[in-house]
Amino acid sequence: MKPGKNDNLKLLQVVIIGGGFGGLHAAKGLRNSPFLVTLIDKRNFHLFQPLLYQVATGELSPGDIASPLRAVFHRYKNIRVIMAEVVDIDARNRKVILKDGEVDYDFLVVSAGSGHYYFGNEKWAGIAPGLKTIEDAISIRHRVLQAFEAAERETDPQKKQELLTFVIVGAGPTGVEIAGAIAELARTTLEDDFRNIDPADSEIILVEAGDRILSTFPPGLSNKAQKSLTRLGVRLMTGSRITDIARNTVNIDLNHQPMVIKTRTILWCAGVKASTLGEVMARGCGAPLDKQGRVVVQPDLSIPGYPDIFVIGDLANFSHQGEKPLPGVATVAMQQGQYVARLLKKRFKGKKTFPFHYHHKGELAVIGRNSAVAHIKGFRFSGILAWFIWALVHIRFLIEFDNKILVLTQWAWNYFTRKRGARLITGEDSL
Amino acid sequence: MKPGKNDNLKLLQVVIIGGGFGGLHAAKGLRNSPFLVTLIDKRNFHLFQPLLYQVATGELSPGDIASPLRAVFHRYKNIRVIMAEVVDIDARNRKVILKDGEVDYDFLVVSAGSGHYYFGNEKWAGIAPGLKTIEDAISIRHRVLQAFEAAERETDPQKKQELLTFVIVGAGPTGVEIAGAIAELARTTLEDDFRNIDPADSEIILVEAGDRILSTFPPGLSNKAQKSLTRLGVRLMTGSRITDIARNTVNIDLNHQPMVIKTRTILWCAGVKASTLGEVMARGCGAPLDKQGRVVVQPDLSIPGYPDIFVIGDLANFSHQGEKPLPGVATVAMQQGQYVARLLKKRFKGKKTFPFHYHHKGELAVIGRNSAVAHIKGFRFSGILAWFIWALVHIRFLIEFDNKILVLTQWAWNYFTRKRGARLITGEDSL
Repeated sequence: MKPGKNDNLKLLQVVIIGGGFGGLHAAKGLRNSPFLVTLIDKRNFHLFQPLLYQVATGELSPGDIASPLRAVFHRYKNIRVIMAEVVDIDARNRKVILKDGEVDYDFLVVSAGSGHYYFGNEKWAGIAPGLKTIEDAISIRHRVLQAFEAAERETDPQKKQELLTFVIVGAGPTGVEIAGAIAELARTTLEDDFRNIDPADSEIILVEAGDRILSTFPPGLSNKAQKSLTRLGVRLMTGSRITDIARNTVNIDLNHQPMVIKTRTILWCAGVKASTLGEVMARGCGAPLDKQGRVVVQPDLSIPGYPDIFVIGDLANFSHQGEKPLPGVATVAMQQGQYVARLLKKRFKGKKTFPFHYHHKGELAVIGRNSAVAHIKGFRFSGILAWFIWALVHIRFLIEFDNKILVLTQWAWNYFTRKRGARLITGEDSL
Repeated sequence: MKPGKNDNLKLLQVVIIGGGFGGLHAAKGLRNSPFLVTLIDKRNFHLFQPLLYQVATGELSPGDIASPLRAVFHRYKNIRVIMAEVVDIDARNRKVILKDGEVDYDFLVVSAGSGHYYFGNEKWAGIAPGLKTIEDAISIRHRVLQAFEAAERETDPQKKQELLTFVIVGAGPTGVEIAGAIAELARTTLEDDFRNIDPADSEIILVEAGDRILSTFPPGLSNKAQKSLTRLGVRLMTGSRITDIARNTVNIDLNHQPMVIKTRTILWCAGVKASTLGEVMARGCGAPLDKQGRVVVQPDLSIPGYPDIFVIGDLANFSHQGEKPLPGVATVAMQQGQYVARLLKKRFKGKKTFPFHYHHKGELAVIGRNSAVAHIKGFRFSGILAWFIWALVHIRFLIEFDNKILVLTQWAWNYFTRKRGARLITGEDSL
């Protein structure tokens, strides 16, 4: 490739925005490469999001599923980490504008992810938290445990029932996982912990607008997951659209019948929306956005007219010819990050490059101890076999990622003792 | 003992305020006893405070050193746990008044502990946090790590130096431990993590009003600890009295010479003050208080005129004949909790009781990897031998307490890899 306007003494700069799965793997792919890499993130750590629900239910501590970005890259002198917030991209001058500074780039990889989306009812956010960050998880843990504590001391049976009712909105993998985990917390872990309530009396309600849970899985697996959840004591309400959320109340349209659930704990796992950096790129570079605010990318993940800007992960809308866009999952982001790193190295050496191609690894959702559903290369698994696949896949990622052998120890410990080591109510958040 | 005004069908109620070392051991001592025990705490967990400094420096996660109180007692049906805040004690009617309710007692054990004390300058609290709670530890971790992050991006050398200056006020065991831990974080753990700063350039200053650190230890051990700290790169300023703390500035009177240190991180390990429940008991039962607000207790740890109210732990001022009061350390609180439980069971059986006697187990302070000082039954240890004693003592307590074998695994892991698994900047707290 041609060094362009850079003089020969200056290294080419790759700036990566976001230290999630996409950004992390792009940076890893460029370690010890001839590029000078700058990884920018608001946080100082990478989060292993697939296990975040276990922090929310007190099985794991935040430190178990997060790795400091500096620790990940400290050995690679061509990679530096900046903890900062990106506010704009100046594509003309090839600069990333930070809240408090700016960084030049020759190539830009935007992997800024997504946040919660309340379908235009953003005021619900304060009442029904989603699960994207460590703070979200601690806040959910706080709410759930605090609800049991308050129920133990409540004398009004009506209010007690409200406290012991948990509503989870959205039955994708996260909603299913957290509903299953709360059910197990109530039925198993907290058994015998209270004197005035039986946590097993709690009602865990999973509300889904579609006609089945885990809609991206084959219907047979949705069915099996539904049965597993019901066995755990989760009440499923499919075909149920949320019409309003207020403190202590969820209003639902259940096949055109209005319905009201009284509850103190509402968790939001329904909608995601791409990072606002999508809009920034639409404004600055005319990048095309889809309805969810994702950038519709070229076959090489760049944005039209800007071969030096790549968008990957949840923020990108990429489709193989004639297919629907890839989902916002970790494996897509990881493969896209690896692809961009390879592409840049090939371009540098003047080698031929190929369009991105996603290797579908399958889908997994865990429902509780010993139960999961998996759809892998056309094969369908459920029950304990799927659970073992789920555990193996996560163990492999964790070890590959940061030697997080301790998490495995913690899991094994929790698994055999049915203890939850991190069942702490901390922080200022109140019910 | 006589059941008094209780009818024979009603169980005698023991109410314990506080789930720290004192309250926990009092409750444990009464498990499966003929008493109905109510343990009241604001938090839902017991905190293993001797390791809190490791949460502050990112070696351990909060869950590693905390155990849910309900989990500790769930098997003992005569013990119930209430998560509530005590606001008053009605000794005449034998009631504990909660913020939202009340609890009757026949015997009351007050083990409400202590908080930070800024010697009348309580406005310093916002600038110089102490280390008593999980939130304190997370806030300190946040400040320390954020200071390195900000220094990495700071271009003004003066401001950079301020960011890399850490002032710890008070050289008791906590101050020494945290100074040592920050020094190791800077010199070892964060080595190679940054590109624009060398964390080893940071200045860690331990300020002490007295003429030596660890003043409760024999002078020879203070001396050894001083040498170890200096070797770790901690600057010691003994004979230095804090005259003012403002954002970014500490004013010190160093042997009548005024001195100013510019810093962004100030940690307070200097003063503790007994819980306000001391004042409550002074008002309500005429309990005598000492200067630090502690209740001066009888030889059986009860308060004068109220043989049914016991005060233990940091909130109690107990002295053996002619000696100075026992220090506010975990072993004192534990032994006092155990003593009160035994006393109540003896009284119930009509057996003879004896005054409390503290079995001095010794003092320990850890200075870093492989270094500590220990003063045990007249023997003095320092260096790696003392460190092994420190490790063994804590391992024994942790295992006895909650089978926290995972913490040991985490320790071993951190020890051999020099990693810090929980080096996360979380929460809303900002520098």
